[in-house]
Amino acid sequence: MGRLWQTKLPQEVKTFLFGTARLADYSPVKGCMVIRPNGYSIWEAIQRDLDRRIKETGARNAYFPLFIPESFLKKEAEHVEGFAPQCAVVTYAGAKDLEEKLIVRPTSETIINSMFAKWIQSYRDLPLMINQWANVVRWEMRTRLFLRTTEFLWQEGHTCHALPEEAEAEARTMLLVYQSFAEEVLAMPVLAGLKSESEKFAGALRTYCIEAMMQDKKALQAGTSHNLSTNFAKAFDTLFLDKDGKQKVVHQTSWGVSTRLIGGMIMTHSDDKGLVLPPRLASTHVVIVPILANASMKASVIEASEKLRKEIAGAAQVSDLPYSVGVSVDTDETKQAGWKFHEYELLGIPLRIEIGPRDLEKQQVVLTRRDTGKKEFIPLSEVPQKVVHTLAQMQKDLLERAKSLRDQNTFTVESYQEFKEKLEQPGGFMVAPWCEDAKCEAKVKEETKATIRCLLLDEKFQKIPEQKHCIFCDNKGPAVRAVFARSY
Amino acid sequence: MGRLWQTKLPQEVKTFLFGTARLADYSPVKGCMVIRPNGYSIWEAIQRDLDRRIKETGARNAYFPLFIPESFLKKEAEHVEGFAPQCAVVTYAGAKDLEEKLIVRPTSETIINSMFAKWIQSYRDLPLMINQWANVVRWEMRTRLFLRTTEFLWQEGHTCHALPEEAEAEARTMLLVYQSFAEEVLAMPVLAGLKSESEKFAGALRTYCIEAMMQDKKALQAGTSHNLSTNFAKAFDTLFLDKDGKQKVVHQTSWGVSTRLIGGMIMTHSDDKGLVLPPRLASTHVVIVPILANASMKASVIEASEKLRKEIAGAAQVSDLPYSVGVSVDTDETKQAGWKFHEYELLGIPLRIEIGPRDLEKQQVVLTRRDTGKKEFIPLSEVPQKVVHTLAQMQKDLLERAKSLRDQNTFTVESYQEFKEKLEQPGGFMVAPWCEDAKCEAKVKEETKATIRCLLLDEKFQKIPEQKHCIFCDNKGPAVRAVFARSY
Repeated sequence: MGRLWQTKLPQEVKTFLFGTARLADYSPVKGCMVIRPNGYSIWEAIQRDLDRRIKETGARNAYFPLFIPESFLKKEAEHVEGFAPQCAVVTYAGAKDLEEKLIVRPTSETIINSMFAKWIQSYRDLPLMINQWANVVRWEMRTRLFLRTTEFLWQEGHTCHALPEEAEAEARTMLLVYQSFAEEVLAMPVLAGLKSESEKFAGALRTYCIEAMMQDKKALQAGTSHNLSTNFAKAFDTLFLDKDGKQKVVHQTSWGVSTRLIGGMIMTHSDDKGLVLPPRLASTHVVIVPILANASMKASVIEASEKLRKEIAGAAQVSDLPYSVGVSVDTDETKQAGWKFHEYELLGIPLRIEIGPRDLEKQQVVLTRRDTGKKEFIPLSEVPQKVVHTLAQMQKDLLERAKSLRDQNTFTVESYQEFKEKLEQPGGFMVAPWCEDAKCEAKVKEETKATIRCLLLDEKFQKIPEQKHCIFCDNKGPAVRAVFARSY
Repeated sequence: MGRLWQTKLPQEVKTFLFGTARLADYSPVKGCMVIRPNGYSIWEAIQRDLDRRIKETGARNAYFPLFIPESFLKKEAEHVEGFAPQCAVVTYAGAKDLEEKLIVRPTSETIINSMFAKWIQSYRDLPLMINQWANVVRWEMRTRLFLRTTEFLWQEGHTCHALPEEAEAEARTMLLVYQSFAEEVLAMPVLAGLKSESEKFAGALRTYCIEAMMQDKKALQAGTSHNLSTNFAKAFDTLFLDKDGKQKVVHQTSWGVSTRLIGGMIMTHSDDKGLVLPPRLASTHVVIVPILANASMKASVIEASEKLRKEIAGAAQVSDLPYSVGVSVDTDETKQAGWKFHEYELLGIPLRIEIGPRDLEKQQVVLTRRDTGKKEFIPLSEVPQKVVHTLAQMQKDLLERAKSLRDQNTFTVESYQEFKEKLEQPGGFMVAPWCEDAKCEAKVKEETKATIRCLLLDEKFQKIPEQKHCIFCDNKGPAVRAVFARSY
């Protein structure tokens, strides 16, 4: 990650990417952001791809009210304790004080359970798998564009099952859907693990999460999947008549990812020149810049560019690329080619093609990759295939590059001393044996500002037992392998 | 429209469609609905198609905050007067009273203008064309599922232009986009016209609208497109530096349609058996019901059904149909075929195919259209082409049927007496000369409950002058052709 994202730089520099690449903007409402078209098109690409993956698991989309009666939030004790301090509350509406205050949803477990309780009668209605794309509001003290905003956009899945093991399996399935989505589409490698008790969702039995490492080596929680057990179902009487004729409580999950993914993706790939977009998130993949300085050649250079645009689009259409490839030709004569190059680098367009009079003579173009900056002369006839190939390659390379940064900055530490040293320099993920005591976890957080990002899991989703004892305290009992880091 | 939609029938009957077809449900929050998966998939089909049409006009999607500072709403005098009584207001958040109250957006002209004012510098930034898919809240006294709910989903477009005639052209362009969308996709014919001064959007110079006639002959406003002139731009200093070096105010439009379209579509096509879905809004277009009573033939009937499913999907893929065709095979043996037929009629699946042992012998199936109920024996080999053809035909027929209902119930009336008689029986759209005096309009509304749905326009979007004088009052001045109706 380039200097753009370093926390201590002046505001002018930090807003460069948001200001000039026009992805987002601060709004007049404290902590709320405006997602501008360049940013929103990334969210649309995320929605298109993830929505398909979610539907493939059997969930269907629905929509539930924005407002939650205050009494609903209070029905699950841990839930209200966790969310009440962050709530925005509607107290009057239609020019009258409300009899019952309405909470602007911070998440929808409660209102959705009130409907599930109506809809579910018997085991035949299970599993019930619902997803919602919506806005939610959590009043935050310190906000950052995309990473932590008072209002954000997300999807929240909510499922009901007859058996506890089905709910557990669903929570794990969605964790893996998020992991493969993050890696295949955002090119953002993530650890999939389990949250510690103190970091789990308010009201959950168990919270799984995916955790990414940003270029500054800080961690970012990128998605969560909760096994809610019967906590909400009991509070809302979400019952079903089982095959054995007995009334039982359903077992539930919920899972979500948000516009925070855009922030994570930006901080995973961008550099000092601006945004670097994985091809699967781009809407324009290739920009062709004809060099128009020579007046007599202008028409033929533009003509060749247009022909190339069509050929690339045609080749992409019959390729294996899992998205439609956008190609544009920039014939604006009020801007210099150099200005355009900078602009498209800033915007993160994956590939740039230059074609000038001399290139045309030689029947070639210059192809430049946004991520590596590598330039190549490519014979005109080979360009369409080369573009298709390079887009696929870039998607892979971005993931590999991020993976190796993460792996190089992940350390298995053997003592608290080593933990503290490595955390300072070079920083990153510290894998350490931990006793699972919350007091010990709190002490580490207070002393180092590092938190447990997740507990690592084996292939059967069991916490990995450590041979060594906890390195943070005197507890000589069994320890598990935990990943610590400073985080966003 | 069958009895399901008649207002005076018992609640059990009215909720039949919503209850059993599971399109939507009342929520515990007054006036808010839950859109269930069967209903939401219709909204997804609407979004997919309309989003493409909106983007083809040059607009790009973005997202603005849910909350609007109270002071913003007050900046445009007519706007606040129109919306203040309907606002839901957040007065505390993050466990503190807010210094400034926040309005949950009823529409976003104000918050969007505050951003436009930042983003627009010069004529080079114009036109600026933005669209947002979002939820909005308007506190309503009487609500009805889909038609009028406290919270609803919509898209709202907001554009800025250098010249007044550009804003006017944009408002008209979007009116025509909505009209063709409603007719081509929803198969819902609409009149495109101009609202009277008293019915226009609070803050607009001019409001265009599309108006549909439901099967009970009442009108439904299905979409609006506003020329805002400089009303909001002046209030928010949305200025640009023009080519002549002068600072000028931008000219704006806004335009929107909502989940109300789903209600309009249902009330345009549904009958006593349940929902009738235009094929362009269906996700499952064809359901194949194998007749499984004969145990020895079961395997071959299912096999033939599966083969047919693939063949239909294959034929649809290479057809001209502008959507992908969903085909399902229902092999559930716990339900009788007759039960299934009723269920799929209720859900509005456009085509049903029955195939039993004797059909298999004769190498044929029974194909039934949902809208007409017409059954045909079709040779197996011809089914895929027949399905493709019938889906296209059904889409056209639904529009034509609705158009003829509307045309048969649209009356050009020559006197107030005739107006009142026809409005009672048979009801419908009354086209009448009107003097454009709001007092006269108010009197007609009070006396007959009919309102002006729109003023009819000529091809140049000019109000059509009437040869006759206003039939409602003694005003002998020029009159225009207005469409009156009782409405939802």
